[in-house]
Amino acid sequence: MTYCVAIALDEGLVFASDSRTNAGADQVSTYSKMHTFEVEGERVFVMLAAGNLATTQAVLNQLKRDMDDSAEESLNSVQYMSEAAAYLGRLNREEQEKHTDALSRAGFTPEASFILGGQIDDGTPEIFMIYPQGNYITTSPHTPFLQIGESKYGKPVLDRIIRPDTSLGDATRCALVSIDSTMHSNVTVGPPIEVLIYEKDSLTFNHYLCLEADDDYLLTLKRAWDENIKKAFRDLPRFEWESVNTRKRRGTQVSAKKKTAKKKR
Amino acid sequence: MTYCVAIALDEGLVFASDSRTNAGADQVSTYSKMHTFEVEGERVFVMLAAGNLATTQAVLNQLKRDMDDSAEESLNSVQYMSEAAAYLGRLNREEQEKHTDALSRAGFTPEASFILGGQIDDGTPEIFMIYPQGNYITTSPHTPFLQIGESKYGKPVLDRIIRPDTSLGDATRCALVSIDSTMHSNVTVGPPIEVLIYEKDSLTFNHYLCLEADDDYLLTLKRAWDENIKKAFRDLPRFEWESVNTRKRRGTQVSAKKKTAKKKR
Repeated sequence: MTYCVAIALDEGLVFASDSRTNAGADQVSTYSKMHTFEVEGERVFVMLAAGNLATTQAVLNQLKRDMDDSAEESLNSVQYMSEAAAYLGRLNREEQEKHTDALSRAGFTPEASFILGGQIDDGTPEIFMIYPQGNYITTSPHTPFLQIGESKYGKPVLDRIIRPDTSLGDATRCALVSIDSTMHSNVTVGPPIEVLIYEKDSLTFNHYLCLEADDDYLLTLKRAWDENIKKAFRDLPRFEWESVNTRKRRGTQVSAKKKTAKKKR
Repeated sequence: MTYCVAIALDEGLVFASDSRTNAGADQVSTYSKMHTFEVEGERVFVMLAAGNLATTQAVLNQLKRDMDDSAEESLNSVQYMSEAAAYLGRLNREEQEKHTDALSRAGFTPEASFILGGQIDDGTPEIFMIYPQGNYITTSPHTPFLQIGESKYGKPVLDRIIRPDTSLGDATRCALVSIDSTMHSNVTVGPPIEVLIYEKDSLTFNHYLCLEADDDYLLTLKRAWDENIKKAFRDLPRFEWESVNTRKRRGTQVSAKKKTAKKKR
């Protein structure tokens, strides 16, 4: 499994991904799912990948070959981020078509999803999610982030914190907390966690972190988040029926609609 | 969709469920998914239901009929909570078998899942999750809660807070926060939220809450949780690369492994 998230902010873009791949529970490997393409001062792209590893590797190779061969369409030739997303969607669909029959006979799927983000010249920095079928969506002010892979466990904290005017630092911390919650609940999502921060109009990658499970910052962040969440929880208002004496009372007591359940309510 | 959670604690049991059902996005209704059976002073059962509504209603009716008819096997006759789970599993499987062929031809499934919890005489209060196939699992000290339906969004907060020695009040608040996070991320999970608290050895239901979307306690709790989470987040340690001057610094700055990404890392 995989979990990748990308966030589009007024200040720039944040990308984060785990590094665990598995084919069954007994075949677990570590692969980076974050790939960068940069023509410094001109254009930058970050690609995050989820799904069939053979498909994502083949698509990555084709992206590189098209750049090296100065193909008619490549990450060097596209003029808009949406054009780059359409191009990646085409490569994704074409690569899957090569193997769909053989794989489906064996009960597998070649499907893969991607997030592609970046900036071309003085265009707006954008992120796109590319579906296995090759179509793609981008963000909106109300939905400034995109996720692929095991996305549900880590979504509530993003929903709560991320807004377009969130700072790059806050968004990076939120992405790490989101991935940490996911790793906690799904063992097929695992470290190292890679994070890439792109400041708008810099046209180069500003900060890259690769955090192993025992990374000092990651450990400090996890411990702080765990403590802070528990404190946040302790400070919630209590129910009327909770005895004030049986435990230290930290929150405010408020009234709740309450009835005693009788036989088959 | 549905989200139900039950928690087994040293002090007793907590049950919580949403009330939204849907057959497609344009056919949304409100149904309670929490059903109680009580022979006061003798035995109490709580059943939470997820999945095909026709199946869950038919199973519920059969449970009631078996009690009323003093059937050979019923919630009145079983001697152990695990026996009650096996009985419910049988009813669930039998009910589904009646409709599997017709439904699968139409592209539907009769599958349903249940959580059954309670206490019989001086037995231990227990909770069980019953799968569509009729088999069932219970909790352990390391996994003191069970979920059915849309379970992923609300799991991280349960993982973080719930331990066997958590108080009934804390566990109830945690269940509400878990359901609130799920409602935020999935519109097919919706109010009213029902909560039932069972104190060990009381053999009657101690507290029942039915919280509508505009319930005072629920609104206060949601607001407090949102504020507390945001504060928990603001207090996290910052990255080295974040400018101390550009924003008020609230957390501790710690060192992070950092490298600048160069052309195709």
